[in-house]
Amino acid sequence: MASRKNALPITRKEDFSAWYQAVIVGADLAENSCVRGCMVIKPYGYAIWELMQSILDSKFKELGHTNCYFPLLIPIDLFEREAEHVAGFAKEMAIVTHHRIELKDGKLVPASPLETPLAIRPTSELIIGESMARWIKSYRDLPVLINQWCNVMRWEMRTRMFLRTSEFLWQEGHTAHETEDEARREAKTMHGVYYWFIHDVLKIACIPGKKPDHDRFAGAVDTFSIEAMMQDGKALQAATSHYLGQNFARAMDIRFQGRDDKLHYAHTTSWGSTTRMIGALIMAHSDDDGLNLPSEIAPYHVVIIPLLKGLGRDDEIISYCRDIRETIGDAARVFIDPKEIEPQNKKWDYVRKGVPFICEIGIKELEGQTVSITKRASNLEKAQMELSIFKHQIKNMLQEHDELLLQKSEEYFRANVRADIRTFPELKALFQTENKFVMVKWSGSPQKIELLDEIGVTIRCIPFRQSNAKGKCILTGEDACTDVVLAKSY
Amino acid sequence: MASRKNALPITRKEDFSAWYQAVIVGADLAENSCVRGCMVIKPYGYAIWELMQSILDSKFKELGHTNCYFPLLIPIDLFEREAEHVAGFAKEMAIVTHHRIELKDGKLVPASPLETPLAIRPTSELIIGESMARWIKSYRDLPVLINQWCNVMRWEMRTRMFLRTSEFLWQEGHTAHETEDEARREAKTMHGVYYWFIHDVLKIACIPGKKPDHDRFAGAVDTFSIEAMMQDGKALQAATSHYLGQNFARAMDIRFQGRDDKLHYAHTTSWGSTTRMIGALIMAHSDDDGLNLPSEIAPYHVVIIPLLKGLGRDDEIISYCRDIRETIGDAARVFIDPKEIEPQNKKWDYVRKGVPFICEIGIKELEGQTVSITKRASNLEKAQMELSIFKHQIKNMLQEHDELLLQKSEEYFRANVRADIRTFPELKALFQTENKFVMVKWSGSPQKIELLDEIGVTIRCIPFRQSNAKGKCILTGEDACTDVVLAKSY
Repeated sequence: MASRKNALPITRKEDFSAWYQAVIVGADLAENSCVRGCMVIKPYGYAIWELMQSILDSKFKELGHTNCYFPLLIPIDLFEREAEHVAGFAKEMAIVTHHRIELKDGKLVPASPLETPLAIRPTSELIIGESMARWIKSYRDLPVLINQWCNVMRWEMRTRMFLRTSEFLWQEGHTAHETEDEARREAKTMHGVYYWFIHDVLKIACIPGKKPDHDRFAGAVDTFSIEAMMQDGKALQAATSHYLGQNFARAMDIRFQGRDDKLHYAHTTSWGSTTRMIGALIMAHSDDDGLNLPSEIAPYHVVIIPLLKGLGRDDEIISYCRDIRETIGDAARVFIDPKEIEPQNKKWDYVRKGVPFICEIGIKELEGQTVSITKRASNLEKAQMELSIFKHQIKNMLQEHDELLLQKSEEYFRANVRADIRTFPELKALFQTENKFVMVKWSGSPQKIELLDEIGVTIRCIPFRQSNAKGKCILTGEDACTDVVLAKSY
Repeated sequence: MASRKNALPITRKEDFSAWYQAVIVGADLAENSCVRGCMVIKPYGYAIWELMQSILDSKFKELGHTNCYFPLLIPIDLFEREAEHVAGFAKEMAIVTHHRIELKDGKLVPASPLETPLAIRPTSELIIGESMARWIKSYRDLPVLINQWCNVMRWEMRTRMFLRTSEFLWQEGHTAHETEDEARREAKTMHGVYYWFIHDVLKIACIPGKKPDHDRFAGAVDTFSIEAMMQDGKALQAATSHYLGQNFARAMDIRFQGRDDKLHYAHTTSWGSTTRMIGALIMAHSDDDGLNLPSEIAPYHVVIIPLLKGLGRDDEIISYCRDIRETIGDAARVFIDPKEIEPQNKKWDYVRKGVPFICEIGIKELEGQTVSITKRASNLEKAQMELSIFKHQIKNMLQEHDELLLQKSEEYFRANVRADIRTFPELKALFQTENKFVMVKWSGSPQKIELLDEIGVTIRCIPFRQSNAKGKCILTGEDACTDVVLAKSY
C-alpha cells in the first residue's frame, strides 16, 4: 500500500497535545475567544453537543426527571453554609461586584457596587437546595427529580478547549429522597446512564467506579465517575454522580415530615456531564486524519460530494445526488455539500470532520447508479456499491462503523492496562516512560498518598468490578484487597 | 347557569397585576429566588419553554441557521467600540471583577481582582462580531447565519417574573451579509418568523411593525418588533429583529474581500426572543381560572384523572385510563396523573395549568367505554363521548381549542383598538381612564415626544400595514401620513 500524507499537519506520535488542537481546528469544532479561558463552540462542534444533549435528555426524562432553570448568580454568603463545598470552589469563582459601567478618564470602569457580591455558579447544589427547602414539606413531595442544562464557570489558570475552560456547558441533575437507600440507588442509576452513554453511545472504553474518599466532590459522601482511556494512555473523568448524604439538606434546611410524623433531612444526589465529553470523544477516536464520530452523535452520517466537471452533465449529477438522499430517506442523516470548492479538498474536510461515509458522485456513479464510498473508520477504505444495495445496507454499515470504533477503543484499552505492577519503584519506573492504566492493590488509607503526587499519578477510581484477591498495598506494602486504577489524567 | 367560584384567589378585574402573579403560582410555572431579580423556572414553566424552543429552533434551522455558543463574559473594553450600544446597556450590566472568594473576619469576600473587568452578556453583538471578524475573509464566506440559546443579564431595579428579570433565557440570532439588501431581507424574514410564532403558534393578536428611530435597539439602523395586546389593554413587545447596517461591522472590523476585489464592511442583523413570551402567553390567554395554553406549546394536551373509589374496580379503571392513552397514541400528549390527591383538587390544578382537555375517568366511563371531558378554552364546558370517537376527534378538538384562543384574542384586540382619536387632549383623557391601542398619525419627528412620556404612553410601532391616508400629527398638529400605534406597555 502506498504511503500517503495525513490530513492533519501533525500526528499523535509527534505531539499529542498539538495534535489534539489540530483535530479541533481541522474539524472546525471550536476556537479560543478574546475572553481568557472561554472558548467559542462553532456550528459543527455545537451540533455534536446538541445530539449529546438530546440523547441524554431523553434518557433523563424516561427516568422521571424534569428540566428546570435556576439563577446563574449565587449570593456568596450562601457558600458559608457548607464548609467542604466552599473550600472546594472558593479559589475558582467569578465574582460579580458591580451592576453598571461608566466612563472615567476615557475608560469604562465598574460602577454601582452590590451590597452582597454574587458568584457565577460553579455548580448549583446550594441555589437549588434553597428552592428544594421551599418545595419539600412532606414525604409525599418526594422524590424531587430535576435537571438543568446550563453554563457554569470555574476560573481556570491553564485552559484547553473542551477539556478545561473557565466557562463550560453541562447538565446538572439534582434529586432529593426520603431514604438513604433510595438516594444511593439514584446516584448509582445515573452513574449507570453515564456509563451507557460513554461506552454504548460514544463507544469509548472506560472504567466505572467510585472515587477514593480524598477525591470526592466537595460536600459529597460518595462520588462515582467514569474513567475513560485516551489514546495517550491518560485517563479522562467523563461524568460524575454523587450521593450527597444529608450534607446539603442540613446546609440548606431541606426537611420533610416523614411517615412517622417527625421532621427528617432529605437525602440528596447530584450528577453532571459536560462539554468535556467532546474532548473525550476527540482523544478516544480521532486519528492522524482527524475526528472519527460514532453515528449517534455524528451531525452527518453520509456526506455527498458532487464531482462537477462542467461537461454538460452537472445537472444530472446534482439530480442523482438528490436521488441518493431521497433513497436513503430517514435511514441516515445525509448532507449534499454544494459549495464551490475543489472536490478533493472538500473530501479531506469531511475526513477531518469524522463523517462516517463520504460519497463522491460523478458521471461514473450516475451512469452505473452506484455510490463510491470512503469509509472513515476503516482507515479510509473505499467501496463501491449499487444505490439499491446502499439503501438497504446503510443501517448495517453504520452499525459496523460503530462496532469498529468501540472495538478499536477496547483493543487500545486492553493493550494499555497493566495488572502486573507490585511495588512502588516498579510503578515509578513505568510512569517515567509510559502512560498506562495500572491496576494495583490499595489499603484504602490516604497514608503515603503523596508518593503518587510525586510521580504525577492519581487513584482514578475504585472499580465496581473487584477481584477480591488479597495483595499488598502499592503505597504502604500492607495487606490490602481493594483494587484501584492508577493513571495520569486530564 | 349557576355561578361558581373561580380557581384563582383573585380576578383580572380586581387587580390585574396580582392576578398575573396568581396565574404563575396557580400553574406552578416559576417562583422568585433568593437572588435579587432572578427567578426559578419550575418544571411546568420550563416544559413550555422547551416546546417554544423546539418549534423556533426547527424553523431557524429550516432557514439555514446553525447554533453555536459564545462566551458568557465580555471584556468591558469591547464596549468602547460602539458608542450607542454601550450607552444603551452601560446602566444595567453585571460586572465580574474578582476570580476568588476568601474568608476575612469570618465572612466570605471577593479576592484576586481581574485586570480587565468582564460584563455578563446583556446581548452578544460585540463578542460574536469579534469571532465573525475572524471567520469572514471573502464574499464566499457569506452569509454567516448563526444563533445561540443562552442566558443573558440586564440588571433591573423593578422585576416581574417572565416580564422583566435581571437574568432571562433567550435565543439571539446573528447574521452577516454581503449586501444591505440581503441583510434587510434577513431582518424582515426573521421578524416574519416571530410574527408567525406569536400569532399562529401562540395564538396571540399582535401588530408587526417598525420601531420609531428614537426607540431602536442600541446600535441598530432599524428595529422591528411584534407588539402583542395583553388583557389589560397594554402592549408587550414580544420579539425583535434588527438590521444593524455596518455599525457593528465597523466596530468589530468585520470586513470581506468583495466580488470587486475591494474590502467591504459586512451588513449584519440580530434578532431575539425570550422567556418573556411566556409572560405574553399568560396575559393574553389566561382567565380567572388560570392559564390557557395553545396546543403546540402545551406540555399535556389531555390529562386523565382516575376516579378511584376503593370499590374493588380501581385496577380496572387504571387499566382503562391506560387504554385511553394507548388509543390516542401519537395524536396528542396524554398524561395520566396517578398522584393520591382528591380528584376535584387535581382537576382544578390542571384547570389552573391550562391543560386543553381534562378527562375524569371512573366506573361510568369504564362501563360505557366513554370519556368525560372538561374543555378548558370553552369556559370549562363538559362533554362526554365514546372513546372510539374521541380518538378520531382529538386532533380536530385541539384545532378548535386553538382557533377559539386566537378568536378570543382577536376579538379582545378589535374591541380595544381605537382609531378615532384625533387630538392630544382626547388622547390624554382616554389614557386617564383606559388602556387601549390607539392608532394615530405621527409626523415622524421626535418633536414634542415628551408629551407622550407625560401620559405614560409610547409609540409601540409603525405598523407595516399603513393606510396612507393623510391626517394631522397627534403631537404637533402638522400634516402627517404615518400611522403609528400608541399604548401603555410592559
